[in-house]
Parts: sequence; structure tokens; C-alpha cells
Amino acid sequence: MTTGADSLVQTARKAGVEICFANPGTTEMPMVIALDRTPGLRVVLGLFEGVCTGAADGWARMTGRPAATLLHLGPGLANGIANLHNARRARSPVVNWIGEHPARHRPFDPPLLSDIAVLAGCVGWTRSVGAVHEMAEASLAAVQAALGPPGRVATLIIPSDCQWAPGPAPLSASVTPTWREAPESVIQAAARQLRNGRTGLLLGGSALTAAGLRAAARVAAASGCPLWLETFPARQECGRHVPRIPPLPYFPEQACEALANLRGLVLAGAREPVAFFAYPQQPSRLLSEGAESFHLADPEDNVDAALALEALAEALDAPAWAMPPAQAAPVPPRSVPLTADRLCQLLATQLPERAIVMNEATTAGFTWNTLHAAQAAPHTMLFSTGGAIGQGLPNALGAALACPDRRVIAFQADGSGLYTLQALWSMVREQVDVTVVVCANRCYRILQVELERAGCREPGPTASSLTELTRPEINWTDLAKGFGMPACRVRSELALDEALRRCLAEPGPSLIEALL
Amino acid sequence: MTTGADSLVQTARKAGVEICFANPGTTEMPMVIALDRTPGLRVVLGLFEGVCTGAADGWARMTGRPAATLLHLGPGLANGIANLHNARRARSPVVNWIGEHPARHRPFDPPLLSDIAVLAGCVGWTRSVGAVHEMAEASLAAVQAALGPPGRVATLIIPSDCQWAPGPAPLSASVTPTWREAPESVIQAAARQLRNGRTGLLLGGSALTAAGLRAAARVAAASGCPLWLETFPARQECGRHVPRIPPLPYFPEQACEALANLRGLVLAGAREPVAFFAYPQQPSRLLSEGAESFHLADPEDNVDAALALEALAEALDAPAWAMPPAQAAPVPPRSVPLTADRLCQLLATQLPERAIVMNEATTAGFTWNTLHAAQAAPHTMLFSTGGAIGQGLPNALGAALACPDRRVIAFQADGSGLYTLQALWSMVREQVDVTVVVCANRCYRILQVELERAGCREPGPTASSLTELTRPEINWTDLAKGFGMPACRVRSELALDEALRRCLAEPGPSLIEALL
Repeated sequence: MTTGADSLVQTARKAGVEICFANPGTTEMPMVIALDRTPGLRVVLGLFEGVCTGAADGWARMTGRPAATLLHLGPGLANGIANLHNARRARSPVVNWIGEHPARHRPFDPPLLSDIAVLAGCVGWTRSVGAVHEMAEASLAAVQAALGPPGRVATLIIPSDCQWAPGPAPLSASVTPTWREAPESVIQAAARQLRNGRTGLLLGGSALTAAGLRAAARVAAASGCPLWLETFPARQECGRHVPRIPPLPYFPEQACEALANLRGLVLAGAREPVAFFAYPQQPSRLLSEGAESFHLADPEDNVDAALALEALAEALDAPAWAMPPAQAAPVPPRSVPLTADRLCQLLATQLPERAIVMNEATTAGFTWNTLHAAQAAPHTMLFSTGGAIGQGLPNALGAALACPDRRVIAFQADGSGLYTLQALWSMVREQVDVTVVVCANRCYRILQVELERAGCREPGPTASSLTELTRPEINWTDLAKGFGMPACRVRSELALDEALRRCLAEPGPSLIEALL
Repeated sequence: MTTGADSLVQTARKAGVEICFANPGTTEMPMVIALDRTPGLRVVLGLFEGVCTGAADGWARMTGRPAATLLHLGPGLANGIANLHNARRARSPVVNWIGEHPARHRPFDPPLLSDIAVLAGCVGWTRSVGAVHEMAEASLAAVQAALGPPGRVATLIIPSDCQWAPGPAPLSASVTPTWREAPESVIQAAARQLRNGRTGLLLGGSALTAAGLRAAARVAAASGCPLWLETFPARQECGRHVPRIPPLPYFPEQACEALANLRGLVLAGAREPVAFFAYPQQPSRLLSEGAESFHLADPEDNVDAALALEALAEALDAPAWAMPPAQAAPVPPRSVPLTADRLCQLLATQLPERAIVMNEATTAGFTWNTLHAAQAAPHTMLFSTGGAIGQGLPNALGAALACPDRRVIAFQADGSGLYTLQALWSMVREQVDVTVVVCANRCYRILQVELERAGCREPGPTASSLTELTRPEINWTDLAKGFGMPACRVRSELALDEALRRCLAEPGPSLIEALL
């Protein structure tokens, strides 16, 4: 018998869903049975739902195609929302399959009942299946919704009786993302604005390919315009093979200063910049009063920003892009304690060609982005997008499953990593080539900075206790071993260098705890 | 200067809030500063928000007074929702303080923006502070809302500018929970119904004190009525000093069979029973058609069920309750592999007087409840209420902080424990007397049962992989050590017995991984 769950899963498979990150419960058992008999759909267990949603986001970022999750009722979805929030901000196509009590059961208010649709609505498109005959069509609709444009989080709420009842025939429609070209009139308008001067160019989204970054550098060379990357890109090509472009600063006073003299900002795949947080006497909008932004390629419309930048470079008769001269080789590792800066430098030196760097190293991660990524071999960087922490390890898992021929570096702050550390276990189970590098500074450093910005220059015991990860010391090598992952701890440049050499050469996952 | 955050925190302190479980971010920095300068309010850092909310629930269950949480924006609240769902089902008074962007910042849709009020609405009372002059009054309103009756989760959404601006004078109102007495007419009606026969008595909520359980046994002795406990009690007195009353079975077919012959069910502090999950050909309502339930003490109205049961026993001229004869001493520990049953038996033998057992041991936990808790010294049990897993370790942390003179046992399934294992670190930091006993059967046993109930008798590789926690093996002693907690692993009855003796005698937390 084809169950409703079979109809749903097989339709999703035909529509292009290849992987499902799952943490199911009783209301999803027919879905588990359907996954068990659907060939070609890989199923990965997460020990916590945030692992599943973050991994689906990582997979989607690397492939452009939707990954699925299977989660248990409202509390299961709630546990996954933080990373779905980040996926939403990254415009990642993710399909959530959430079990629900049958309609006839809900009026009795069973203990696990909650309003799943309201939760799902916080992160994107939502549909509640009403009857089993919808199961194939609803499944296809969710995949289509996830692909957009733009890519988004699409949640299907599936009563268990619709899963177990006899289902309709699966649908056979394949769905692919569509990209649009920027109209010629927009290219010309951007060229005019840049020629008029006092106009900057901000890159984001689909502009952050090697081709897009090179075209942007040509545009800057031809027009003399200042150039920035969005501060929190979903995915970006990095390394020696692309021009070195600074990210727009994180703190609003610095960003405002950078943008102060502009009367216009051309947006290529980026949104108009906004302060991440509000502060007293700081504006929300980072452009000066009277300055206007202009969309060369609006990411909400899936306009191909790299293509638009190439057309813009041609419109400006820009010169060809020339590879910058190689930088001097960095100081070799020494037998001295590690700093965040030297950690980044040594990682850049050893980074394998085509690596994927999932950067959730927070303060050390800014150092990496602004100073060291450009020295490394060509690689792809994934970054925090929505500010919800705990994205790094799950994202790295998903990226590694999406790209089994590439090495993934989970470049991880210790504080953030602890939100979803259960991802280490799934990395071991799936034997993905992930090297986890934990920047163990044993504090929420960014919050110490923010506390000082809020006027607290001498925190008392309570404020200190809320930003320090000491008392007791956290030992990441023990945590990794608890989840079956080989791990080591390093304190010196030499030890890090040696550990990186070993871990990057070995297949499968391992963890380096770098004490800073 | 008194900030808005000071007004809020000091008002809450005066209203009876003594503890705050916190995981703040930038939008909560003025709250952190306010906590830093408010004496008498203990602040506990959780490494993950589910730890904070679960701990607040545990504290509230043991004290009856509200505990606060401090969480970061929508994603921070989302990470805490699963345990807030359980707190809601337990009617625990919990006050959430959630930072928010200022109103002037929100129209710019900054990366961390999401609809916090919608998330909070899923778990209870919600109020968004509109202006700084509300900060004291809103703080008091949240504490009052949390205390009910009935107890509930109350969330205050607090824009950061209302935190940092000059605030109003704190309010000085103390708030205490109110309990009502059941009217005499209701007592008499219940007595009549019980005398008429074919009526059962279901105990829950405030009936589950020693006095309530004894009064219920007297009612049963006088009327001959069958007697059950609600299946998922928030808090219950257990041990040799109270009558042995079975919980209503978990699976609906068993519960229906138990209730089959009744035409009435008197509810003392319990809701009318409902199937936890829906199954094909199983009803949602567990009472037979035509059978009616009757509230002796409605938990939604905070009616004191223990008092009502005592009045009912008197109305029925019930005999005094007699302590049952002591049971034979169990078989002493042997040098043989552990089973869940023997684990429970050995724990019951050693359980210290007045211990608190947080039972999230799932399948082993049912064994404890139905067979072994009654043999142990007088103790209090906390139980999963809403079905969202990951409650155990955080709840144990909160209960231990609430009752520093009592030993807490976190009786924990391995699968559930992994959702919020970060609680181990806070236990060490706060040096609470918690003994964690992990029942390591290395699978989601309950899901294996449910998979079979769903008709899957021979699971394929995918279905098996979703219910097995092998490949790789999880080592709880390493995980505990990673968080700074002493830990050991036991495989035999003798080793468990020895480990329990040692851990229960030592101050501070430790963990025993019991391999089953």
C-alpha cells in the first residue's frame, strides 16, 4: 500500500529533494517508514533539532537545492527555529516536514499540542495538510515554495492520519531554481550613477562568486567607486584568486563613517545596509541622510548579481581584472602561545584548495574575514546570516554532505559551538571530512565588548559571570570524544600547525581545540 | 541613574522573583547591568536557552514561586520554547524577559528581527513593553500573570531603549499564589457519585502531596472506587510513606481498558484523561462513551485538591489511613549486568530521605514509577509534563537551586538527555547536589516501540538508524568531563551500587552512566 507519507516523500524525491535531516517522534512514524522505502533519499539523524535545521541550511547553501527536515510537532520545530531563522536570512531553500496530531485528536488538547502553524509562520511559508488526498500536491508545493524565488523556508504540517492512510499517486515534477537577468536599463542607470561619483557599490548574495567579485573589482577600477561586501554573507568565494574587498564594518559608527561621503549606493545582491543592533545616539540606517540606494540586482527577485556586475563592467568599459601580486609568505609557526590572529594566519597557510570554511568564529571570525581569508587557497566561506548562534557545526555537517569531495573547516567560537554541539555526533556517524577548529577563548568576547559599549566598564560578579565561560573550564576534546570524534588540544603555534597538517590529511571528522 | 532595566528587575525582586536563568545578548545588556546591581537576585548562566527555561520550570515546581529567564530576541526565546511548553503543561510560574530591538529600529528589518510576540504567544501570557514608563508596572504584571491562578508562563518583550533609558521608580508589591477551597456542594456531589458506584478517581496536580494521596486512599477504601494518578504529573510525593496508586496507563488501549466499566470519573487536580497520541482505530477520549467526568478540584482554578480530598474522605466517613506493611528487602547487588528494572531497584534502596527525583528516564522511568518509587524513602518526583524532551537535566538544576538542602537525582534517558546536555556545566558552576543517573540503552526505545505499533516489524536501515544511538557510541562520562563534572560508567549491579553510594554521599554534582 502507498501511504500518504509515501506519496509525500516520493513526490519530494522526484522534485529534487535528496536528503532529509531527521529527529522524528511518534507522530512521524509513517514518515520514517516511507523514508525507509524511498531509494535515493539520504536520511541523517540529528540528536537535536537545531542540528537538523542548520545542516539542511548548509546543504542548501552549497547546492542551491532544497534539503528536507523531519521534526516532531511544535516543540521539535521550536528547537529548530534559531537555525531556520538563519536559513531564512540566507534565502536557503529548506523544506520542513512536521508531524501533527490528527484533526479529530486536537480538540482534546493532548499534552504535546501547540500551534505549529504560528511557529512555522515565523520563519517562512507554511501549509497545513487538511486531508490525505493532498499529500502529493502539498509536497510538491512545499518544494516549489522553498525554491522561490527567492529561496525560503517552507514548512508542511502533516497530521499523522494523513501519513498513515492510503495516499494518492506521487507526482513527477522536477523543480529547479530560476535566476533572472537584470534589465539593460538598470545596468545603464547604475553606470550613470557610478560615473556621477560619490556612489559606492555593496556586494552580497549571488554577487559573491569569483566571477561576481572580479567584475565588481573591474567596476571599481573603471569608476573609482568604493566597494564593500555585505557584513553577513550566506556564501562567498574567498582566497588568492579573487579581489580583496572589505566587508562593511559591523559596528554602526564605523559603517556610517565608511559610507559618510556617499550620495548613492548601488546594491548588487545585497540589501540596503542597516545597523545590526540599535545603540543610543546611533542611527538604524547606515547611509547618510539624503543618500539613496539603488538595486542593480535585488536578491528578493533572484536577479543574478554576478551577471549584472559583468554587464556593468562592460557598460563602463572597465579594464580586465588582473590577479594581485602574491603576498609575502607569513612567519612560520613558532613555539609560542597562540593568538587569534596567528591562528587565522596558520589556517590560511594550510587551507586546502576548494575547502569550505564555515565561519562561526565570531571575533576571531572577523579577523579571518578582514585579514587572512584573502591569503588562502581558493575556498568557499559560509557565514552567520541571521545572528542566531549555533549555526556553525550543523552548517558544516550539511555542507560536507553536499560536497563530499571537498574539505570542510568548521571554524568555530567556543560559546556559539555549545548551542548545537550534538552536530559532532552526526559528523562522526556520517564520516564527513570536517575539521572542527574551536577558538577557545573561554568567554563570550563579543558580549564583553557590547557590555563596555553599554557603559559597563567594570562589570561586577554577575555581569562577569554572564560573559565568562570559565568556572568550570570547558574541555572540547572531552566533549568531542564523548560523541566519538578524535580530538586534540593545542596551545602553541607549532602544535596547531602540526595538528592542522594531520587533521586535514585524514579522512573523516576531527576536532582541534585551540586555546587562545 | 535608575534605568528602565533597573525598574523592571527591582520590581520583580520585590514581587518575589529570587532567581534568573540567563543567556543574554546585545539587546539585553542593560538588563545584565541591572542584574549586576540588584542584591538578592541570583543569576545563573545557561550555555543554551533550553537549559534556562527548563531550570526556571524546575525551580518554580519546587517553590511554587516564579523564576525568571533572560533570553536574547526571537531565536533565544525559540530555543527555550520546548521546555516552556512543558512548564505551561505543569502550570509552573515562569517569567521570561526577552530583549527586543527598539521600535524605531524594527522597520529596517535588522538580521535578528523576528516576531517575538507570536512565539511567546505559543506558550502563554505575553506583553510587549511600549515605553520606558511602563517598565515597573509591566514587570509586576508579568509576575502576577505567572502566578495566575493557574500558574503560567508569562513573557515580557522589552525593547533595548526601554532598558537603557531613565526608568520609573520600582514598585513594591509582593505577589503570592492563591489557592481556593472546593465548595461543600461539590464535595457532596462527588461523594454521592462515588457512593453510586462505577465511578473512578483520578489524581493530579495539587492532589499529589502526601496528604492528598492519603486522603485519596481513604476515599477509595470507603467507596471502593478505583484510583489512578495522572500519567504525566508535574510533581508528586512518592515513597514508602504514601499509598501506592498506579498511574493511568500511557497507551490508549490500556487506559481505555482500565476505565472501561466506569460511568463517571472524579477528577482531583487532574484534567479529563486524553490519549497522548492518536493511533488508527483508537479513540482520543479515554473514558467510555456516555461516561462523564466531574471536577472535584479543577487545576485551572487553583482549587486545592488535597484539601478537597480530605473533605471528601470525611464526607464518606472514611477510615483513617494506615501505613502499608514494609515490603521484603530487595535482592542485594550482584556481579551481573544491569537491567533497567534492577537499576531502579538499587536506586530505590539507596535513595536519600527527601530526595528529589527528576524522572526523564522514559521507558526506565515508567518502570521506576509503577514498580520501584513506592519502595524508596519519602521523596518528591518531577516528571515530564508536555512531552517535549530535554526537560530532565535543566529541571534537576532548577530544583537543586530551589532546595539546596535536598539531594536531586536526575534520572535520565540517554536520548532525551542529549537535547540539553549543556545543563551539566551549570550544575558544576553552581555546585548543586545533583546526581545524574543516565540510563544508557543507546536507542530511542520508545520510538522502537512506536515504530512497531505503526506496523513496522522489521525496520530497514533507515528506520533503524533513526532509533539507534549507536555508530558511534556516545560516552556520557567524556561528555560530563568536558563540562567539568566527575563521572563514571557502570555495567554491573555491584558497580552501580558502589557508584551510587559514593556519588550520593559527596557534595556537588556527579554523573553515573549506567549501561543497559
